Amino acid sequence: MKIRVNKKSYFRLDIDEMNGYTPGEQPKMLNLIKLNTNENPYPPSPKVIEAIRNFELNHLRLYPDPMCDSIRDVVAELHGVKRENVIAGNGSDDILTMAIRCFTDGERVAACFDPTYSLYNVLARMQGAKCIKIRLKRDFSLPANVVKKADGANLLLIARPNSPTGRSYPLKQVAKICEKFDGIVLIDEAYADFAGDNCADFVKCFDNVIISRTMSKSYSLAGIRFGYALASAKIIDGMMKVKDSYNVSMLTQAAVKAALQDREYLAETVAKILNTRKRLVKKLAALGFEIVESDANFVFAAPPDNDGKNFFDVLRDNQIVTRYFPGKTTGRYVRISIGTDEQINKLLEIAKKLYQPR
Amino acid sequence: MKIRVNKKSYFRLDIDEMNGYTPGEQPKMLNLIKLNTNENPYPPSPKVIEAIRNFELNHLRLYPDPMCDSIRDVVAELHGVKRENVIAGNGSDDILTMAIRCFTDGERVAACFDPTYSLYNVLARMQGAKCIKIRLKRDFSLPANVVKKADGANLLLIARPNSPTGRSYPLKQVAKICEKFDGIVLIDEAYADFAGDNCADFVKCFDNVIISRTMSKSYSLAGIRFGYALASAKIIDGMMKVKDSYNVSMLTQAAVKAALQDREYLAETVAKILNTRKRLVKKLAALGFEIVESDANFVFAAPPDNDGKNFFDVLRDNQIVTRYFPGKTTGRYVRISIGTDEQINKLLEIAKKLYQPR
Repeated sequence: MKIRVNKKSYFRLDIDEMNGYTPGEQPKMLNLIKLNTNENPYPPSPKVIEAIRNFELNHLRLYPDPMCDSIRDVVAELHGVKRENVIAGNGSDDILTMAIRCFTDGERVAACFDPTYSLYNVLARMQGAKCIKIRLKRDFSLPANVVKKADGANLLLIARPNSPTGRSYPLKQVAKICEKFDGIVLIDEAYADFAGDNCADFVKCFDNVIISRTMSKSYSLAGIRFGYALASAKIIDGMMKVKDSYNVSMLTQAAVKAALQDREYLAETVAKILNTRKRLVKKLAALGFEIVESDANFVFAAPPDNDGKNFFDVLRDNQIVTRYFPGKTTGRYVRISIGTDEQINKLLEIAKKLYQPR
Repeated sequence: MKIRVNKKSYFRLDIDEMNGYTPGEQPKMLNLIKLNTNENPYPPSPKVIEAIRNFELNHLRLYPDPMCDSIRDVVAELHGVKRENVIAGNGSDDILTMAIRCFTDGERVAACFDPTYSLYNVLARMQGAKCIKIRLKRDFSLPANVVKKADGANLLLIARPNSPTGRSYPLKQVAKICEKFDGIVLIDEAYADFAGDNCADFVKCFDNVIISRTMSKSYSLAGIRFGYALASAKIIDGMMKVKDSYNVSMLTQAAVKAALQDREYLAETVAKILNTRKRLVKKLAALGFEIVESDANFVFAAPPDNDGKNFFDVLRDNQIVTRYFPGKTTGRYVRISIGTDEQINKLLEIAKKLYQPR
């Protein structure tokens, strides 16, 4: 056959010019203490293990339920809504992609805070949509006049609690934004199970609100890929059109159903993590760290010398991987996922050596 | 909280106006003979079952490998290419979505044959892209001047073997199209393992060709969601930018790796299906059916009275679900997935009762 080498790129210009999203490192070394992508240090519920062990694997020859209806029913009951208010995603990133594809394009602009989950901006870029960045205050709390600053946007993405800061925003203020904003508000509640409150009930009042949740953090199921969204039936209907037909695997559906029903295990695991978080915050504060108030399973902490990069590097040299976000506002900090007490103790030992006043 | 009901739709016009893709029915009744979505009637390889049974389920708390590198290596070896020539998808529909998002938009048009896999058109619509439909000949073979007819398109989607017809196109003719077409050619080889030849080697010659494959048909793994694409490193690099970071679950990765390595089981299963296909075609032909020559795990067959709908309905009344595609060219036919010999015998009994000359 003749060899053919393209003279031109056939890619859309947006794709050619953009950089893809860089996920947190998934190191293949087993002896590392991995505190970089906010995974849960505890295993999934024993009910999940049982569901997978008992799964009739010969059924894998068949397509899964494209709608995940049995999971939608469990989720609906959990949040006091109906099946028609729930959509399933291959991770909550899949939910974000659906929303971006439904509500943004060359004319319909997205908006999000800065700093926040950097994927929002990447997804907008991919879709050929501009993304308005609304700067948070110095302490990463909400600035004044958010609705005015987001004016002209069709989709406002709010991570609550936010990442990488861990900070939540007052429920009333967020409700006010939802009430006033002329567009869709997507509240990304990936970390909501670690917070004191959440916005799930907003979908009962506001026809323009999407709540997204993930099983990757509080349910210890990052490996199986599942997230869901709650919204008005009209929004869910439209999102269904862009959903990939069979986006959630059969084994994932079995695991998720079991996990969602084991409320006790979830409560126990979350309680352990909150306990460890409290201890970590206290000890780091005693060493002079500045710590953003966290409602998530991680803390955003600036060492006394404000050199986030150095702390990150020293931890890494000691086989502890955390996450560093370069930049003017974020570069002072290191984001530390809450691990087991043992893992956090090792981190604290290193912090002590570095920052303990002599 | 105040109740808010949107006065306007915030959806993109394309989404508001389009109908979503309707996947084939996944009936929940267990006694049905399911010959409607081209699933494999045989279970997955015992190696797959073993891989899942032995999987350390506590690892599910961690994110999966975002790139699926260990699978990419197996796929690369299988096709004599490099890791950089392979991308993994959450089913091959995910691969199609990535291609549509990379190569089409309001200005960059898609093209495909008619009839073909109807998802192509839905995906283009979703992306706000036009889709040129190139009508196949009456016998569903390639028309003349395909390149000219696709002129102006940036992405040409070719299902080979085609669905719903099962027909393949001559390798040389497809190579000629790839050589001459000023754009990307995606050859969807979902059914290639059931065909006498395939286009995988095209990626070694043509910088504008993407080959997509699925594990849903020949590997009996529709339930686990996996597909992959082969292409030049430059195309794979660009597609990686739009790929969802963690698109393939950990359990799926384990299952796929085991399945890809069990070549013997694949060959056995495919041989059984080809055998049953041959028998079905022969018996239906004897009853006066017109059958499109099939290179896939299904046949597209028109009963002697050319009333596809009636045959479909009678089968359905007898607990056999096949697929009917309304329309001028397709409405004469019924698409029958190749089941076990026992299942196909039941279908043949009904066909005999209906069409046996007395």
